[in-house]
Amino acid sequence: MKVVCFGEIMGRINPMGYQRFVQAKEFEISYAGGEANVAVSLANYGTEASYVTKLPQNDIAEAALRDLRAHKVDVSDVVFGGERLGLYFVEKGASQRASKVIYDRKYSSISMAEKSDFDWDKIFDGADWFHFTGITPALSDACAEICMDACKAAKKHNVKVSCDLNFRKNLWTSEKAGKVMAGLMEYVDVAIANEEDCEKVFGIKAQNTDITGGSLSKDGYIEVAKTLSEKFNIPTVAITLRGSISANDNNWAAMLYKDGEVYFSKNYLIHIVDRVGGGDSFGGGLIYALREGYSNQDAIEFAVAASALKHTIEHDFNEVSVAEVKNLMGGDGSGRVQR
Amino acid sequence: MKVVCFGEIMGRINPMGYQRFVQAKEFEISYAGGEANVAVSLANYGTEASYVTKLPQNDIAEAALRDLRAHKVDVSDVVFGGERLGLYFVEKGASQRASKVIYDRKYSSISMAEKSDFDWDKIFDGADWFHFTGITPALSDACAEICMDACKAAKKHNVKVSCDLNFRKNLWTSEKAGKVMAGLMEYVDVAIANEEDCEKVFGIKAQNTDITGGSLSKDGYIEVAKTLSEKFNIPTVAITLRGSISANDNNWAAMLYKDGEVYFSKNYLIHIVDRVGGGDSFGGGLIYALREGYSNQDAIEFAVAASALKHTIEHDFNEVSVAEVKNLMGGDGSGRVQR
Amino acid sequence: MKVVCFGEIMGRINPMGYQRFVQAKEFEISYAGGEANVAVSLANYGTEASYVTKLPQNDIAEAALRDLRAHKVDVSDVVFGGERLGLYFVEKGASQRASKVIYDRKYSSISMAEKSDFDWDKIFDGADWFHFTGITPALSDACAEICMDACKAAKKHNVKVSCDLNFRKNLWTSEKAGKVMAGLMEYVDVAIANEEDCEKVFGIKAQNTDITGGSLSKDGYIEVAKTLSEKFNIPTVAITLRGSISANDNNWAAMLYKDGEVYFSKNYLIHIVDRVGGGDSFGGGLIYALREGYSNQDAIEFAVAASALKHTIEHDFNEVSVAEVKNLMGGDGSGRVQR
Amino acid sequence: MKVVCFGEIMGRINPMGYQRFVQAKEFEISYAGGEANVAVSLANYGTEASYVTKLPQNDIAEAALRDLRAHKVDVSDVVFGGERLGLYFVEKGASQRASKVIYDRKYSSISMAEKSDFDWDKIFDGADWFHFTGITPALSDACAEICMDACKAAKKHNVKVSCDLNFRKNLWTSEKAGKVMAGLMEYVDVAIANEEDCEKVFGIKAQNTDITGGSLSKDGYIEVAKTLSEKFNIPTVAITLRGSISANDNNWAAMLYKDGEVYFSKNYLIHIVDRVGGGDSFGGGLIYALREGYSNQDAIEFAVAASALKHTIEHDFNEVSVAEVKNLMGGDGSGRVQR
Amino acid sequence: MKVVCFGEIMGRINPMGYQRFVQAKEFEISYAGGEANVAVSLANYGTEASYVTKLPQNDIAEAALRDLRAHKVDVSDVVFGGERLGLYFVEKGASQRASKVIYDRKYSSISMAEKSDFDWDKIFDGADWFHFTGITPALSDACAEICMDACKAAKKHNVKVSCDLNFRKNLWTSEKAGKVMAGLMEYVDVAIANEEDCEKVFGIKAQNTDITGGSLSKDGYIEVAKTLSEKFNIPTVAITLRGSISANDNNWAAMLYKDGEVYFSKNYLIHIVDRVGGGDSFGGGLIYALREGYSNQDAIEFAVAASALKHTIEHDFNEVSVAEVKNLMGGDGSGRVQR
Amino acid sequence: MKVVCFGEIMGRINPMGYQRFVQAKEFEISYAGGEANVAVSLANYGTEASYVTKLPQNDIAEAALRDLRAHKVDVSDVVFGGERLGLYFVEKGASQRASKVIYDRKYSSISMAEKSDFDWDKIFDGADWFHFTGITPALSDACAEICMDACKAAKKHNVKVSCDLNFRKNLWTSEKAGKVMAGLMEYVDVAIANEEDCEKVFGIKAQNTDITGGSLSKDGYIEVAKTLSEKFNIPTVAITLRGSISANDNNWAAMLYKDGEVYFSKNYLIHIVDRVGGGDSFGGGLIYALREGYSNQDAIEFAVAASALKHTIEHDFNEVSVAEVKNLMGGDGSGRVQR
Repeated sequence: MKVVCFGEIMGRINPMGYQRFVQAKEFEISYAGGEANVAVSLANYGTEASYVTKLPQNDIAEAALRDLRAHKVDVSDVVFGGERLGLYFVEKGASQRASKVIYDRKYSSISMAEKSDFDWDKIFDGADWFHFTGITPALSDACAEICMDACKAAKKHNVKVSCDLNFRKNLWTSEKAGKVMAGLMEYVDVAIANEEDCEKVFGIKAQNTDITGGSLSKDGYIEVAKTLSEKFNIPTVAITLRGSISANDNNWAAMLYKDGEVYFSKNYLIHIVDRVGGGDSFGGGLIYALREGYSNQDAIEFAVAASALKHTIEHDFNEVSVAEVKNLMGGDGSGRVQR
Repeated sequence: MKVVCFGEIMGRINPMGYQRFVQAKEFEISYAGGEANVAVSLANYGTEASYVTKLPQNDIAEAALRDLRAHKVDVSDVVFGGERLGLYFVEKGASQRASKVIYDRKYSSISMAEKSDFDWDKIFDGADWFHFTGITPALSDACAEICMDACKAAKKHNVKVSCDLNFRKNLWTSEKAGKVMAGLMEYVDVAIANEEDCEKVFGIKAQNTDITGGSLSKDGYIEVAKTLSEKFNIPTVAITLRGSISANDNNWAAMLYKDGEVYFSKNYLIHIVDRVGGGDSFGGGLIYALREGYSNQDAIEFAVAASALKHTIEHDFNEVSVAEVKNLMGGDGSGRVQR
Repeated sequence: MKVVCFGEIMGRINPMGYQRFVQAKEFEISYAGGEANVAVSLANYGTEASYVTKLPQNDIAEAALRDLRAHKVDVSDVVFGGERLGLYFVEKGASQRASKVIYDRKYSSISMAEKSDFDWDKIFDGADWFHFTGITPALSDACAEICMDACKAAKKHNVKVSCDLNFRKNLWTSEKAGKVMAGLMEYVDVAIANEEDCEKVFGIKAQNTDITGGSLSKDGYIEVAKTLSEKFNIPTVAITLRGSISANDNNWAAMLYKDGEVYFSKNYLIHIVDRVGGGDSFGGGLIYALREGYSNQDAIEFAVAASALKHTIEHDFNEVSVAEVKNLMGGDGSGRVQR
Repeated sequence: MKVVCFGEIMGRINPMGYQRFVQAKEFEISYAGGEANVAVSLANYGTEASYVTKLPQNDIAEAALRDLRAHKVDVSDVVFGGERLGLYFVEKGASQRASKVIYDRKYSSISMAEKSDFDWDKIFDGADWFHFTGITPALSDACAEICMDACKAAKKHNVKVSCDLNFRKNLWTSEKAGKVMAGLMEYVDVAIANEEDCEKVFGIKAQNTDITGGSLSKDGYIEVAKTLSEKFNIPTVAITLRGSISANDNNWAAMLYKDGEVYFSKNYLIHIVDRVGGGDSFGGGLIYALREGYSNQDAIEFAVAASALKHTIEHDFNEVSVAEVKNLMGGDGSGRVQR
Repeated sequence: MKVVCFGEIMGRINPMGYQRFVQAKEFEISYAGGEANVAVSLANYGTEASYVTKLPQNDIAEAALRDLRAHKVDVSDVVFGGERLGLYFVEKGASQRASKVIYDRKYSSISMAEKSDFDWDKIFDGADWFHFTGITPALSDACAEICMDACKAAKKHNVKVSCDLNFRKNLWTSEKAGKVMAGLMEYVDVAIANEEDCEKVFGIKAQNTDITGGSLSKDGYIEVAKTLSEKFNIPTVAITLRGSISANDNNWAAMLYKDGEVYFSKNYLIHIVDRVGGGDSFGGGLIYALREGYSNQDAIEFAVAASALKHTIEHDFNEVSVAEVKNLMGGDGSGRVQR
Repeated sequence: MKVVCFGEIMGRINPMGYQRFVQAKEFEISYAGGEANVAVSLANYGTEASYVTKLPQNDIAEAALRDLRAHKVDVSDVVFGGERLGLYFVEKGASQRASKVIYDRKYSSISMAEKSDFDWDKIFDGADWFHFTGITPALSDACAEICMDACKAAKKHNVKVSCDLNFRKNLWTSEKAGKVMAGLMEYVDVAIANEEDCEKVFGIKAQNTDITGGSLSKDGYIEVAKTLSEKFNIPTVAITLRGSISANDNNWAAMLYKDGEVYFSKNYLIHIVDRVGGGDSFGGGLIYALREGYSNQDAIEFAVAASALKHTIEHDFNEVSVAEVKNLMGGDGSGRVQR
């Protein structure tokens, strides 16, 4: 049985190393997106993953497809049409200088897709899990409706639904996000959020937390998860806990709230190579672990270890194996050479 | 006195060397556009050049501005706003494989500009020449109107107008181009076109010419220039004559039709480094030579030599000096090392 | 129905540009092999292609698999085991300096494979064509036997067999090649060879031909094809005709001998970007055209145009579409920019 | 009103990443110099900045000019002549391995300039601030005299004078530096120094300070500033305080001594990308803040935050905006992604 | 008098930066090997060093020789023949992600060398020191015998013998290693080992030590050195002590056990650029210091400082001078810019 | 017996590919010089070659030494001191655009060397050939005297002297060159010149030759050689004949005038990769062939084939083997892949 991921894959354009946009003449282009990143994580763990989106018919989009295919992600349900592949520019921060993202995703094929583009009954054939993020319904009203279609179809096909809230202030307001996401949450079995999402989307705020300071309150986050879970009747809620010391060094942990119980993961102090896609790699790890029947504690540990490793890998895709994640979960974070 | 160039500058994204789009992971981004290329040519020759466009307020557009400023192009009349910088992807062809351009310029700031964005009376203060291309009115109806505004203001300010027809089939149909361009041609003092433009825009076709075969008929082109000149009462018409042997090797020449007389340039057999921007560098050379009061024969020789050199230079901007162009005009195309 | 290709895929290690091995510190690694190149050509044309080999279980081999998957080549029948991925080093020649290949393929997994590694009945399920080259039986005695197994199974399954003679003097002697290949030729429906192969493997020599001089005798090649066809009862024989002017410039053409009739293709004067894999791209084009039911003349034209384009593309894989090949077949080799 | 900066801009040649000189085959060339770095900082903050130097007339110097122009620095008062552009080679250190600089600046155009090259009355037209460093008078006796000319002209034009002591032991001895700089200090309104300069130039030593150990004595530095201020009657003295933990990690802070009052900035623990130009970016930030009328505490905080950010940016120029500096001053050094 | 180093030099292939193998298209190839690294260290310190191995006669091996020659290593006793240069692929780890090495060294020329290939009497002419590592006898039974030949010849020529245990689990079992190395140890004057080698080869285990945790017991290591020294009658035993905090940060120290006395070095907290070759650079530093007659404490400090610096240098060779090592030994690890 | 080469080795700084100086941010640095290029050619052919110069003691000069050592050139007679390594910037031309060289060699260590720096009796111990070019005496009056010292010592030691006229207009006038070179020519056994040198240095002009036009008169060159030979009593004179079609394509041939007889080589039409160093590689080939006792015709053919190959190789050093040169001499310039 496969996991279906639906959303927008974009061209990610970044200067080499720590160059700023205005300094660079050479750039790398890779391909990424919240749900595509999850699909690749799953495929790298050996899970069957299908990625659904709408793409223009040109060589840049074909390059994105090649990257997905290379990772064994099934792209046979991708729809073609529209005018452009969304793009985003990423500038890597360092120390006190923040990383910077400039989006150029407006008018992309998926953002201008229509409901009739996707036949969810066909897409969910052979699937047992559906994943999307809060970015997708934010792309357009039509995309929000398509997500609703997908959620309803998922329920019909007995497909579990996971959603990473992923609030994007450039795409919509908190007000609109709250309204749209509330409708979708009714279908969600597993909700994933970071420390800002719940507040920005649903106004659920962790107490005593100062994002820029790096201190986190465990109790506050339990309260957030509980509120989210009860408000929308979501059995499983996972929250990632990032403590930003600097653009180079972060603390990284997460908690799982499931059936009223709380599970905190170990914390990792990470020296960052590339943190974009970190949250998505958490989602990918969590879905894998839950589908494989890991214990709740192991599930959250797997998801956090997987995403800790992501921070050491260039570009959005999390290029690690189950064995590597388990090795870190098992306590070996010494980084000794593996010969 | 300065030359004002108005149009769209875009980010030009190309893989390194001869890689195809689907093979590349690293790309160069430079900045270019039909009229910006002319402005840079002129500034490189020591002519005061001002470039006018509308740009979004982000670091990618700032990089474009830096490139123009580096070349001494005055960008103080650039207007800010809108959503995105247009982009285009360029794949370099070789031998029998054609170069390929994918445009991603829709919804760019300039294409969504409004008439009120530009104060032409202020812009033409201190100017004696205005240059635009057929690409700009093709961007949107508003852009066509803005071009018309500019042309009228130019006449009012005694500013000469040059226009490179530059037909782009992705932006509009021949039918629409013909209608819009006909209106603008009334204001044009110097028209520039290549072997396809006159046919595609105004249905003026050179006889006995086979573009893909590389053979060109001198008489046919004289007829084309004459027709264009007479139809729109344009005193000066220049036509570039490209003979494509392959993506690596081209013949390159041009003719000038002025006040009823015809001047053919020498022909150059060019081994190509990068041919995008070749036509624009011809325009830049021609405007320079005409403004400097070159003889008609010298003017067309300068323009052709300048643009022959452009084909040996990476990216769109023509990074050559007047001395280098004159050296080639003077007959030294041997490429011997200059120590 | 799919085409099955069987052979060795290797890591291809080359310095950048025209650097010699002893000058280089940075290298590109891509993945290639005679039959893998054919499989990729076919997949790029939309043909279902399956690639069969034996690979070690490590990340370098996984990178090779990703490249095949990215191109839609089915790798589900690849067998794992053995010690190493074969490698070869390629130095690009220029002008009078020849390109240079250093092989480091000994002891590769496929060269040490055993007959029991491959279940040809399963592999040929759903196939109608089998392709291999003279390199594969040269790898080891076991590989020669595996080829024989494959050929026999192919006949049993009504699968057509094509073979590119591809003599490699580092792998075996002409004597041994002649003996082994003679046995395999009995099963071959389509034989492909270049101007040296027939002589080196079977002692069939074109008269009046001087390989290093660039002159070719049409009659001589007809004789060679006829002899090969009759000796082994092979209905279809294709011979590529390369005229090496220099490492940068080659003439390229081919002939098809089918059912006693001879079809010569157009000749292309090619300015070379990368000629390694040129012959394989001919094979890929020919198999495509024959399977699609092209006329004999069109088939050889398609194969030659396809492989002419390959010479303009970096690395072994032929990254072109059917539309691009047809465009060149149709006569447009001018390399004009496609916007 | 503009700030005039006078000194030497050089070509900065550095290997990529952490390569040592003897390992590298590829190098980046950027352009930098103590006063040019300040001019670029100011221009990046929106301040009108003019840069004055003498350059040879060749393409390498033209590249330096293009870089300055790109940053909006006015180079219209640059003088041309002489033989060469000064160069310096930079090797990036890591951990316990120090960064290394090899200067090749002897016989540069500016070092061989003459007094008559510069017309300070014209240069200071429209200026209200003049900045130079202790490097410029060290280049040659003529350069020392030119600095003296400039200082005198500045006073005549009511232009404030700032000077960064910047002792360079390769250019002159402490003895000579002390003598020359003492003469110039009489004209200085704002003196900038690091922990070594005062000692090396004027023998003013901070007590209880161990540069290589990283410990710093606040009281000692107050004493140094006070002594310098009183000795030369300089109202404003700023001292940067660097604690070198390793080539990768530094503590960075500064103090401002103004009108008898002392203001210490926050300390930043910096993970370094490139520390060359760090001191200059402090000067640029300080001049900006003082000219904008910041409070004394805010001025030193702005200068330190600006220069802390510089350490995260490749090459000498400080590519940051006022908004980014203010954001860090305001307390957000978490490096969280800015989308 | 010269130092002779004998072993295998390989091509080291690594992706750029922190890329994983499966992500990379470009790789650096450098040349390295346990004993070659020592020879280069010694030559960089001004010691005459000769490197002995067997290499195939091709351009890749010639590149390795050029690299050794560039460093002044005498390669006149290298023997030619065999089929291939061993290779290894290195992927740089970061934070919790371990570095990864894939060996492709089987069937290399040296691993298939024969006893008769080396004339030790000639090789040791003019030598006073012989160095090899536990990797060389692990390559093949013949290599083990060749090492034995060399050791015996060394004794005959009054040449001191040093050996770095360097256990490689991919090459042999602990059991076989123990047996072979025991025989060779009889000839060894200076044994070098890291925290794992003694246990894996001879079953001598440090008490209370957890490699992946980073804690080290001084007493345990003294016991290990003493046991090794007494068991094989080796007067000098050095043990490196690595505390792996992460792939980026390591503690690094060592101890020297000589004539019954123990000398611990300072500990360095290293921010790693490239740690492969770290142990070899320790050996190189130790041999240099012992031959130069350093005191025991200075010898171990030199070796540790040298190898601490190695961790800041790309590739295996330790590109540092005696002056740089002494500067660090002397206490300056501040990494301040050296102008 | 060894060949001694004396002159200036410089850092050669070039942008990548066909970039112009003003476009580039990344550059390659290699090391080259007229006589160093000859020394490397000879060492690559297996001839013992010693290179003598004066270098500053820094890492950039050490990199130059490493490059020479890597090529087996003996650098044990290099003298250290002075201030800087000479540099030159090279921009690669294409088609009608000429390559451009900017020298920055003034004040280099060798140009400021003194007669006492070199002990020619010691240097010529074991030598049978001395090579220098007209560049070296042009560096300074002292360098001219050092060359004279060397020539006289050579005669004393029975060492043959070869000199490549190599006129450099940036270093001296024709008048001064003529005077100085006339003195040195008395000691020269083999003179090498290109089509311009004889005219610029000695006013000996080939009739009916138009350098920029590409036509060459055989008779004219015979006359030139004869005149030179007779004027200075030089038994052997070689003249290279370059026909510059464009910066990409050159004709290349040479003639040898020996003992009154004339030998013309084959002509090669070369597609150029890098032509800097072409003349030096001719010198290297000629010296090799003459010392090896080749026939006169073979000697000139070897020299021309060697230097034809150089044009296909990046940077100044001619990285080819005797076998490769002989292969081309033998007629195989087809550039076919060598597997």
